[in-house]
Amino acid sequence: MLTLYFAPGTCSRASLIALEESGLPFEAKRIDTASGEQRSEAYLKINAKGRVPALATEKGVLTETPAILAYIAAIAPSAALAPLDDPFEFARLQAFNSYICSTVHVNHAHGRRGARWADDPAAHEAMKAKVPETMAESFALIEDGMFAGPWVMGERYSVADPYLFVMTGWLPSDDVDPARFPRVADHYARMLERPAVQRALAREKA
Amino acid sequence: MLTLYFAPGTCSRASLIALEESGLPFEAKRIDTASGEQRSEAYLKINAKGRVPALATEKGVLTETPAILAYIAAIAPSAALAPLDDPFEFARLQAFNSYICSTVHVNHAHGRRGARWADDPAAHEAMKAKVPETMAESFALIEDGMFAGPWVMGERYSVADPYLFVMTGWLPSDDVDPARFPRVADHYARMLERPAVQRALAREKA
Repeated sequence: MLTLYFAPGTCSRASLIALEESGLPFEAKRIDTASGEQRSEAYLKINAKGRVPALATEKGVLTETPAILAYIAAIAPSAALAPLDDPFEFARLQAFNSYICSTVHVNHAHGRRGARWADDPAAHEAMKAKVPETMAESFALIEDGMFAGPWVMGERYSVADPYLFVMTGWLPSDDVDPARFPRVADHYARMLERPAVQRALAREKA
Repeated sequence: MLTLYFAPGTCSRASLIALEESGLPFEAKRIDTASGEQRSEAYLKINAKGRVPALATEKGVLTETPAILAYIAAIAPSAALAPLDDPFEFARLQAFNSYICSTVHVNHAHGRRGARWADDPAAHEAMKAKVPETMAESFALIEDGMFAGPWVMGERYSVADPYLFVMTGWLPSDDVDPARFPRVADHYARMLERPAVQRALAREKA
């Protein structure tokens, strides 16, 4: 059995959606980040980094969203969530998800997690002030180049789609109007129509 | 033919080493970051993000180190640079490389690329001041947990090894003594003995 440790509204939503899309049986365990449960002794034994998501499997625990997403795709081939048999297309998918984790999510995090990278509260304010600019720059690159359409990688839905969906959902709180990126905004609306996405969002609210 | 666009001393060194390990024929083209060539019109046509590395293939251009490393491993199976046939072990490898790109490299970048995330020069100084702490925290997690030994993933060398090697090489400039992490420091020394690493470093100096 797979167990996903998640927190509502975080990037773990991408893995939750991918699991719902996969058709695999899984359990979802909520980590209460408001009370700091991700840094509890019990959770640090699952993920020493003290972050969500973490996916517990019979073989061990996986962390890092791009790795979890690719793993879900690999063990549920009938769900066709990644071009598993095409090394170049699979690498393109990994490149997209790497860009999300190393650049887009990091840009966003500067608006609320500045303490990760500086101790001075004035520096946190300076970081927060630049988030609308860096997020808009990243989404311009996605809208104008990386996003093939109608799904991230083209005609076929993949595990890049829930990851982009999570980032797009963060734009309003980053003071960026998603309407500036019409193809991405349309993608977000279509994602909301997918039953798997609706089930994932319902799990977060449960 | 594969063409790797690289800049000496950057994270592109990991891809350069992986290509040398792979046995694949390739060309390496240096991008002069000192003069800002990564933002030139010609290079932006190759990689719109204006960064290295980029790997030009017959099928198109790949970016993002974790994706490039996994691709090199996938198209050179005889070099055994990744556990391609084991989804869980492959995901563990991807998780390690994702952690490097989204956390370790990002920590390091705050020492010299603070302008990515804030406009205020005082904020850049505050970020720079915290780099020794964040890099040491990341390397403690690697030393005590993620690093299986003797190679990153265990008995088998993989594309995680050159990526860690690059990060370890940055520690002195981040004011972190690599000797604090004896297993990682030993890994660095053994990497320097590999002919592929020596060839990659020679290419950077050429």
